[in-house]
Amino acid sequence: MPLLPELPECETKIKTFFFDTDSCGLVHNIAYLRFVEIARSELAERLGWPLKEMEKTGLVPVVVKTEIVYKSPARLGDIISIISRLSRIERVRFQIDFELRKESLSGSLFAECRQILACIKFPERKPSPIPLNWAQSYPWLVGRKMGKS
Amino acid sequence: MPLLPELPECETKIKTFFFDTDSCGLVHNIAYLRFVEIARSELAERLGWPLKEMEKTGLVPVVVKTEIVYKSPARLGDIISIISRLSRIERVRFQIDFELRKESLSGSLFAECRQILACIKFPERKPSPIPLNWAQSYPWLVGRKMGKS
Amino acid sequence: MPLLPELPECETKIKTFFFDTDSCGLVHNIAYLRFVEIARSELAERLGWPLKEMEKTGLVPVVVKTEIVYKSPARLGDIISIISRLSRIERVRFQIDFELRKESLSGSLFAECRQILACIKFPERKPSPIPLNWAQSYPWLVGRKMGKS
Amino acid sequence: MPLLPELPECETKIKTFFFDTDSCGLVHNIAYLRFVEIARSELAERLGWPLKEMEKTGLVPVVVKTEIVYKSPARLGDIISIISRLSRIERVRFQIDFELRKESLSGSLFAECRQILACIKFPERKPSPIPLNWAQSYPWLVGRKMGKS
Repeated sequence: MPLLPELPECETKIKTFFFDTDSCGLVHNIAYLRFVEIARSELAERLGWPLKEMEKTGLVPVVVKTEIVYKSPARLGDIISIISRLSRIERVRFQIDFELRKESLSGSLFAECRQILACIKFPERKPSPIPLNWAQSYPWLVGRKMGKS
Repeated sequence: MPLLPELPECETKIKTFFFDTDSCGLVHNIAYLRFVEIARSELAERLGWPLKEMEKTGLVPVVVKTEIVYKSPARLGDIISIISRLSRIERVRFQIDFELRKESLSGSLFAECRQILACIKFPERKPSPIPLNWAQSYPWLVGRKMGKS
Repeated sequence: MPLLPELPECETKIKTFFFDTDSCGLVHNIAYLRFVEIARSELAERLGWPLKEMEKTGLVPVVVKTEIVYKSPARLGDIISIISRLSRIERVRFQIDFELRKESLSGSLFAECRQILACIKFPERKPSPIPLNWAQSYPWLVGRKMGKS
Repeated sequence: MPLLPELPECETKIKTFFFDTDSCGLVHNIAYLRFVEIARSELAERLGWPLKEMEKTGLVPVVVKTEIVYKSPARLGDIISIISRLSRIERVRFQIDFELRKESLSGSLFAECRQILACIKFPERKPSPIPLNWAQSYPWLVGRKMGKS
């Protein structure tokens, strides 16, 4: 359920398992990128672009850039609450910002992440316009500079 | 929620993401082992042995053997319904059987898996009795031969 | 380099990294399946079936069954020596046996694995004969029963 | 073998396997982070800080920030040549820059990555000085601003 129906954002809860941890006893840095992909897929679905549609049409959001800052470590069995927000829109590319927190929206911060994605048509691998009227629904996200918070 | 409260089994639903697939366009064989670990962790928790408890006590179920048979391939965005059943109990070891099906208990079969686990005390790495009265709760699971369906 | 040029087997050496371990301080059970896939790909290449050829022709060996027994745990930074042996051949399916040892062929045993694979033609997903004259080169591997050591 | 013995850099070659790809037919964005960790571990070892030493002493470099830009996609079976360069040193933190190219140092660029790491003492999780005289060996890397190329 979107936090605020009118905003392009959602909350995803993920539990960490042994395969997410490493021998330092904490969640491994790469595991957070899987959490981010789960959250991103859920946001895309809520905005009208589910995985099954991507597979059928070949129109897929491809990660162009990832920036992730690790603030405090998650542990085995922690529940991670991820807020994903669509924050900028261009014709082909868009940006999503993520906050990963302990258990809930007000929990302590595990990590912050920002990804820029491009809409690519497979199998040709041709950059294509985003297949949704996000620009119409969220006009304030258009024309903002990528890569800024 | 256990399917049948009195039986040591549960159903776990998992969605597949891009990171679960490979370039053949299907879910990769190794990804199913992550699904099995998620299901196993949920069954353990419902039987009174949550991940947080494992971390605190150092008593951890360690996989001794895995057998997995792939029946039909899952695809991107599929929901996998996993039934996990505790099927045999010894003093230190136990067996869990898994069925991975499409969407629900009656869906087509993706894979069948069977794992034997041993209860190990860390950091000493000493085999230890299962820290629960499973044998008392499920006496019919005691004394059966491991590795049989 | 094959151990014995005339035999369908090879040795692959793999180092373990932090992402292979879990919070028990040892290599996680799922990581070994990645090691097995690396070894299997190397054996296939040495037998004339490299990954690039699989991608080009769409003829791909698909895992039908995996059986893996964990004997003793590997640790961070260990070198794992994997012996892969083609051990049975049918028309469409074949079996590979793996031994994972510490550092060398004579090192202590981490795990033993056995996989049955089927040759599948993509994107049609049609079972197809193995695209190589393995049966001619290794006639003693034909007609043996799958799933036995 | 370091490219230039006097410089804190090295080249690591990695092959991509099926488990590195996704259903778009290309190497998945998260797989590159594993490649980067392999390269980083090799650079650390060449600079005198091998994984086995980290495990023994509990002094471990922990990723504080990752930035990765994807330039062109790698495919199944590609050889990725990774150049890792220690580029900045503080007392506790340091930065490594990575270039991932097709097959060799002069190949086309797959991705560029930059990571900031902090030396942490486990199990206390206390920030600690880097356990090596990198500042003495590479004085020109001291005092540069983190996060710049």
